[in-house]
Formats: sequence, C-alpha cells, structure tokens
Amino acid sequence: MRVLGIDPGTRVVGWAVIDDRKGKLSLAATGAIKARAADYAQRLAEIHAALLDVIAQHQPAQAAIEEAFSGKNPRTALVIGEGRGVALAALGQAGLTVAAYAARSIKRCVAGAGSADKDAVARMVALQLGLAKLPEPRDASDACAVAITHCVARRAKAATLGA
Amino acid sequence: MRVLGIDPGTRVVGWAVIDDRKGKLSLAATGAIKARAADYAQRLAEIHAALLDVIAQHQPAQAAIEEAFSGKNPRTALVIGEGRGVALAALGQAGLTVAAYAARSIKRCVAGAGSADKDAVARMVALQLGLAKLPEPRDASDACAVAITHCVARRAKAATLGA
Repeated sequence: MRVLGIDPGTRVVGWAVIDDRKGKLSLAATGAIKARAADYAQRLAEIHAALLDVIAQHQPAQAAIEEAFSGKNPRTALVIGEGRGVALAALGQAGLTVAAYAARSIKRCVAGAGSADKDAVARMVALQLGLAKLPEPRDASDACAVAITHCVARRAKAATLGA
Repeated sequence: MRVLGIDPGTRVVGWAVIDDRKGKLSLAATGAIKARAADYAQRLAEIHAALLDVIAQHQPAQAAIEEAFSGKNPRTALVIGEGRGVALAALGQAGLTVAAYAARSIKRCVAGAGSADKDAVARMVALQLGLAKLPEPRDASDACAVAITHCVARRAKAATLGA
C-alpha cells in the first residue's frame, strides 16, 4: 500500500510517498514543492499542478495530511486554509481520499510523545524509514511523519476490526 | 473589458462575468457552482474544475474577489481560507491576476454605504446592471458586486492616472 503524505503551505509544500509492505515501511520518494511565482494566485496554481505531477509520477493509493490546526490567530488560519484548500483540491482531483491526523497524534505515533519537538520527529522519521540521513527540507520530513502515521493508524484499525 | 467576480466557498461558489464598455456595465453571465460530492477533497476538486469551465466559457480578462475577512474565529477563517485557496488556484491556472476588495469597499461602491445590508447590495447590483430581477442565488449577486467594484475601481484609477 502506497501512501502520500502532504505538509501543505502557500510557498513550500512537503510531500512523501511511503510504501507499507505488511507493516514494513519504506520511503519511495520525498521532496518539497517550492512555488516561485510572485503572484499569489499563480503560486497556488503552481502548487496544484506540481502536486498533480507528484501523484501521477508516484501513484499513491491513499493520502494523508495534518489535521488543520486553526490556532488563535484568524489571519494565520486563513492563510493556512488557503494552502490546505489547494492541496486538498489536487488530491481530490486525483481521486484520492484524504485522512487527517492531529499534530499531537502524529508526534505521538512517530516519536512516542505528543510533545516531541520537530528535531525529534525528524530523527524518528529517519529511523523508522531506515534512512541514513534526515529527509530535507523539514517540510519533506513532516510529510513523511504524516504518511507514517497513516500507515500505522490503518494497521491499528485493521487489527481492531480483525480482532 | 470583461471581469470575472468570485464569491468563494467550500460548497457554493458564486460567479459573475461583467462587461465594462467605456464605463457602461452589463452582465454577460452569472451563476453559482454547487459542489455535490460528500467527500471534502472531491468537493474542492469539483469547484476547481467548475471554475476552470466558467473561465474557459466566458474568457474574462481580469478577476476580482472579496478580500479575505478573517474575522474572530480561527476555525471559520481556516474553512474560508480553504475555499479561497481553491478559487485562487483556478484563477491563477487560467492566467488571471486577481484583485481583492474589502467587503466595506464593495458595499460602498455598489450601494453607497459600507454598512449596506445584503438586500440593499443585491438591489443595487440589479439596478446598476439594468436587470429586471435580482441575480440568484445570493452568492451570484455577491459575485456581481465584487465584479462591479473592480470595474469602478479600475476606471477611478485610470482617471487619476490620466489627470
């Protein structure tokens, strides 16, 4: 089962494609889309097109994204929403259903604690995927973390259902 | 000059295409995209595709959208952002630059007062476009209002520059 994890944004979008072979996880590909256009709408269009390219190239079966954390600042939440909307539209266009996981769940799943810092998450991502070095940039590493969480959550659910 | 006005959303997106012929405004077409999919990502993808269809059919030269009002509720702002992100990505993909106008500016421009209520705005939209009845649904009427504002603002700017 191949899972695409996405760390959305309006300038940089992290992505990671992870294969789950009977619970053994491996990284197929990861990277970050860096939108270059000065115009905001053009930049969002760039991200949309680049995500469709990633999906076409790597053919994931499922997708996962961090659950929207709206925070306390409406202005920030609005911009986070704009980045998420574009990513979700691309995933939807590709026919992928999208699972969402809270940041704390992702940290707990990947690094063992909901309060783990970003460095700890990145190190544990590399460890769990058997990587010699941390995925770069951080957006790619965050995308790996959400994809790992989806793989683990799916198996946990399957195990519960089968019990 | 043909202007596309957009009232974004995650279920219903109003749109209006207005022609400005030397300051005489007329409505070429208006409507509302109603996304039907139960799945959220699919719904955003539906909106993206439908907006591209509207643009391909009516070939606007410029686009305008209400400036994001993030309000006080971060959760609401996030969802508003998701709807805006999809709309902006579609407009960007079609090569349109997007002007944004604050809600108060739109009301002042269309109805003469920044505090005008939605009914007053809808009636003035119909009056300014010489329509026998109000555009339906309200999302379409709101899209007309932002398109009218862009036409008026462009002319005001051109007049200032030419003075």
